Amino acid sequence: MQNWEVVEGNLASPRGFRGAAVAARIKKTHSDLDLALLVCDAHAATSAGLFTTNLVAAAPVLVSKQNLAESHGRCRALLVNSGNANACTGRQGLHTARESARAAARLLNLQPAQVLLASTGVIGVALELSLVTKQLPALVEKLSIENASAVAHAIMTTDTFPKACVLRSEVSGKPVYVAGIAKGSGMIHPRMATMLSFVATDALIGPRTLQNLLRAAVDESFNRITVDGDTSTNDTVLAWASGLAAVGVRPGNASWAWFLEGLTQLCQCLAKMIARDGEGAKKLVTVEVQGARKPSDADRVARAIANSPLVKTAIAGSDPNWGRILCAAGYSGALFDPNRVDIRVNNLLLCRDGVDAGFDEASARKELDGKELVLRLDLHQGSASAHVWTCDLTHDYITINASYRT
Amino acid sequence: MQNWEVVEGNLASPRGFRGAAVAARIKKTHSDLDLALLVCDAHAATSAGLFTTNLVAAAPVLVSKQNLAESHGRCRALLVNSGNANACTGRQGLHTARESARAAARLLNLQPAQVLLASTGVIGVALELSLVTKQLPALVEKLSIENASAVAHAIMTTDTFPKACVLRSEVSGKPVYVAGIAKGSGMIHPRMATMLSFVATDALIGPRTLQNLLRAAVDESFNRITVDGDTSTNDTVLAWASGLAAVGVRPGNASWAWFLEGLTQLCQCLAKMIARDGEGAKKLVTVEVQGARKPSDADRVARAIANSPLVKTAIAGSDPNWGRILCAAGYSGALFDPNRVDIRVNNLLLCRDGVDAGFDEASARKELDGKELVLRLDLHQGSASAHVWTCDLTHDYITINASYRT
Repeated sequence: MQNWEVVEGNLASPRGFRGAAVAARIKKTHSDLDLALLVCDAHAATSAGLFTTNLVAAAPVLVSKQNLAESHGRCRALLVNSGNANACTGRQGLHTARESARAAARLLNLQPAQVLLASTGVIGVALELSLVTKQLPALVEKLSIENASAVAHAIMTTDTFPKACVLRSEVSGKPVYVAGIAKGSGMIHPRMATMLSFVATDALIGPRTLQNLLRAAVDESFNRITVDGDTSTNDTVLAWASGLAAVGVRPGNASWAWFLEGLTQLCQCLAKMIARDGEGAKKLVTVEVQGARKPSDADRVARAIANSPLVKTAIAGSDPNWGRILCAAGYSGALFDPNRVDIRVNNLLLCRDGVDAGFDEASARKELDGKELVLRLDLHQGSASAHVWTCDLTHDYITINASYRT
Repeated sequence: MQNWEVVEGNLASPRGFRGAAVAARIKKTHSDLDLALLVCDAHAATSAGLFTTNLVAAAPVLVSKQNLAESHGRCRALLVNSGNANACTGRQGLHTARESARAAARLLNLQPAQVLLASTGVIGVALELSLVTKQLPALVEKLSIENASAVAHAIMTTDTFPKACVLRSEVSGKPVYVAGIAKGSGMIHPRMATMLSFVATDALIGPRTLQNLLRAAVDESFNRITVDGDTSTNDTVLAWASGLAAVGVRPGNASWAWFLEGLTQLCQCLAKMIARDGEGAKKLVTVEVQGARKPSDADRVARAIANSPLVKTAIAGSDPNWGRILCAAGYSGALFDPNRVDIRVNNLLLCRDGVDAGFDEASARKELDGKELVLRLDLHQGSASAHVWTCDLTHDYITINASYRT
């Protein structure tokens, strides 16, 4: 088994997948791509999914959960739109979602329960079914390996760049691919990270195994990013395995760790792209906490810092305000002695034993001016550690969100 | 017993108090008031205090807690500065705080443990003791009823207006006063609300009773405001009772409810001023939740909405994005049926049974354009209710906080 390496490609680089996208006039700018289809042509394909924990779940989330269960993890298509989240749309929204899946299934010769759905965009506005169904025949017509590149574009809302990653490995000379795309921006928060992500692989994996692998990878990636602390109604991560690489992955086997490594690497790559592209964000910030008494303490401290608007605005202004970082750690709920805490930005010590380390202001600003930076806390209480990715909080976040709906 | 009514006056309107403020050059703008003293001249005066729950507590918080305990609630003075929080300053910071209290006590003929302290401003920078002690004789010299008005000014940081309120009542012809001041702005979050507030009364109240009354009033006021979800290192509410009105307040007596009513009214008045003056805020927002299954559910929903950056930016932009409100309710942790929720801004229905109520866009914007507005949710699950005060999230919040320290 080789290591996983990043290669050129798209969501259909793993064998057995095709994709396409069209402009269906769901977005306000009518020429923008906003409806996409991904299909797995392997009859024995498997699928898995993780969904928002928000009590207010969008119609496509409800339908996808149901379809995954009904098909026993044998879904083979994804129909996704941007521009409208089909959330808070009641019975009408559920009807639209179910009819969309049914229409796609008919054209693809699948059972309706084999089609998974996702939507992203404005909440509380009815999604017009005809906008979706009218474009479906054209979408199916366009399905190809090349056209799958457009899917990453079609799921963007306030994202400023498409997010895609392809990894390749080999087992006994047989190439195996894992490919993924994502969209993020505002409303990004762990459990579940507030975003859409779709993963395709040609490894041979049973549906339950795929579900377990996906959960493990998401815990170490999408569940470790936060942009604004809001958890959306539409969070969805879906995965399909075509099996056509003829390389099996089973629990309790070396293949498990090997595949999980690739899947986690892929999801982390996409998660970091989401954090970097947080609404209005200019910087990717990694919060690393070590020396905690227990993992949950490390996790609490890292998340409190990553979620603090005061820390995030200070980073936007390259202000080495380590006091706010220590303050956020203090209200995180974790137990530690504030007088033993060290705080660094990258490798520059700002705070030693809970007080000013006497750092050089200009050097600190230079570290904070970087597009990628690490805030490191050592609590000196034990050996547990945790990390979370986030971004700075800028004027543009306000501009984007003050009038998103209209 | 009369009702409480708002009257003209200052923190020394209750009999037995004097105050003063000076510019001690702790603030960057050297002409600004930044050091203040409040003294109660009644020998039998009592005092009470509530402090931040942040593990990282500032030196003045630690010293005040200790002094309240040591003096058995018989503190008679407050020394407060702005411009420097004396937080994350280690042993040196504790030394500075203790020596400040000692110096003030000497000049006032009090025990050091009878002096309470508070600081607000930048974190992690040493507070120069000499700046405080040098000005103490002048401060004591200036103590008067009139000069107590300056204390509300001296505790301001990014506040845009001083916050003060005086209430008056009568018992059997004897006038009783409760007066209070506060400072807030950023880092405002419930438990404890992140702010300073000082309350003086001339009612006759034992120290333990005063502590219980203060806790009850704060639960219904300062613990119900939120600006940015950060909880500071310096939160402090202190109260003194001179007893000179010769009107006693005792538990299990009609006087208890009467006084608590006045104290709560005072604290709510100050709390709302803090929310209205949140950093960069243009609007005071009351989130009212009713129809919850239980009080904790109502509380969770109200706080999740009040803390959501997406809701608060939408309000800044007068965008009737009720979907974000429902979404925040959905991740609050409260249990309810999203399909039964009604959402109103003031009295205008935006969402009925979890879907768009078909409201008039222009009317909704007009309601949201107001300087004070109420977001009302009815969950239709039971009879529990809760409310929280907050503000909108604007560009100015970012501007203020991106370079606060420097």
